[in-house]
Amino acid sequence: MSNDTRQNIIEAGAEIIHRKGFLGTGLKEILDAAGVPKGSFYHYFKSKDDFGLAVIDHFDEYFGNIARNIFEDDSLSPLQRLDKFLTTFEGFLASNDYSLGCPIGNLSQEMADLSEPFQRRLDQSFTRMSKEFAALIEAGQQAGEIKPELDPMDTAYFLIATWHGAMIRMKATRSGEPLTLCKRMLIDNVLTA
Amino acid sequence: MSNDTRQNIIEAGAEIIHRKGFLGTGLKEILDAAGVPKGSFYHYFKSKDDFGLAVIDHFDEYFGNIARNIFEDDSLSPLQRLDKFLTTFEGFLASNDYSLGCPIGNLSQEMADLSEPFQRRLDQSFTRMSKEFAALIEAGQQAGEIKPELDPMDTAYFLIATWHGAMIRMKATRSGEPLTLCKRMLIDNVLTA
Repeated sequence: MSNDTRQNIIEAGAEIIHRKGFLGTGLKEILDAAGVPKGSFYHYFKSKDDFGLAVIDHFDEYFGNIARNIFEDDSLSPLQRLDKFLTTFEGFLASNDYSLGCPIGNLSQEMADLSEPFQRRLDQSFTRMSKEFAALIEAGQQAGEIKPELDPMDTAYFLIATWHGAMIRMKATRSGEPLTLCKRMLIDNVLTA
Repeated sequence: MSNDTRQNIIEAGAEIIHRKGFLGTGLKEILDAAGVPKGSFYHYFKSKDDFGLAVIDHFDEYFGNIARNIFEDDSLSPLQRLDKFLTTFEGFLASNDYSLGCPIGNLSQEMADLSEPFQRRLDQSFTRMSKEFAALIEAGQQAGEIKPELDPMDTAYFLIATWHGAMIRMKATRSGEPLTLCKRMLIDNVLTA
């Protein structure tokens, strides 16, 4: 039961933090959304910052699971899996009317300058993502469909950066055009052999 | 004199907003930094939001001027000018210990979902930047140094997105490595013919 309560607080808080940012989200909102008293929150989390780190872990695991499900799909080639990941992400963003964006990118923007523990945890999440993308890029090179001269880790890094920037532009245009354009250029002009 | 006061309030406020975000900056902090009373602020600006739009104009003009100075430097080839722009920007970011990032990107992240006037003004700034980058990319194609098959406007869009994403990763790693890596891949793998 207790793990359920902790997870329930994390999921309720994560949804609000994704919409309003970490600093813009009050503890009371989290408690109201989770339906728990303050004492229960402090039973599981030492502080709001401690809770924020658990929320980053939650987002990291959530998006990591989505990525791994696609990245391990043997019915598609490695490059098709990368394409499918970006297309799946586009679908999420479309369903949110091209708002919100990626919570890991958003929290980096908002919190990395202000908190070293946040900065380190976000950096870990980026590194985890980069390694998984790099493995897929390397598999695409071995399959002959991705340019052999690309360094897999650098290219993973580049791909993730472009995608985060595309989400910033998406918010400024309130449309999916930046996502479609950047996905196409990444696949056609950067990756495809 | 009155234009000086208005500009003084904008510049003092812009510096704080760059560090703390628009929502995180209180009107009192702006007044204190500019050394003006509240009545003076409301003489020039209808509201804090109205002031925020003037701050976006200020950033747009500031970065636009830096870009144009480099983009019009005939002693360099078009691709060298693009490289110099990114390298100049890297220098600014290094001098801020790889924090802060681009205020247009930051305000898009923070405010575009929340305010349609902000979203429209930020979109205009992105479009202005994209057109100037596209003109330089086209000049580079005419000079034979940038891949002829690239669409100049799409490529400008892509370049700006990658650079904004590199700044997010910069904040998460607290280092200039993402900037250096993304610049090199943009120049070597995307642009160079």
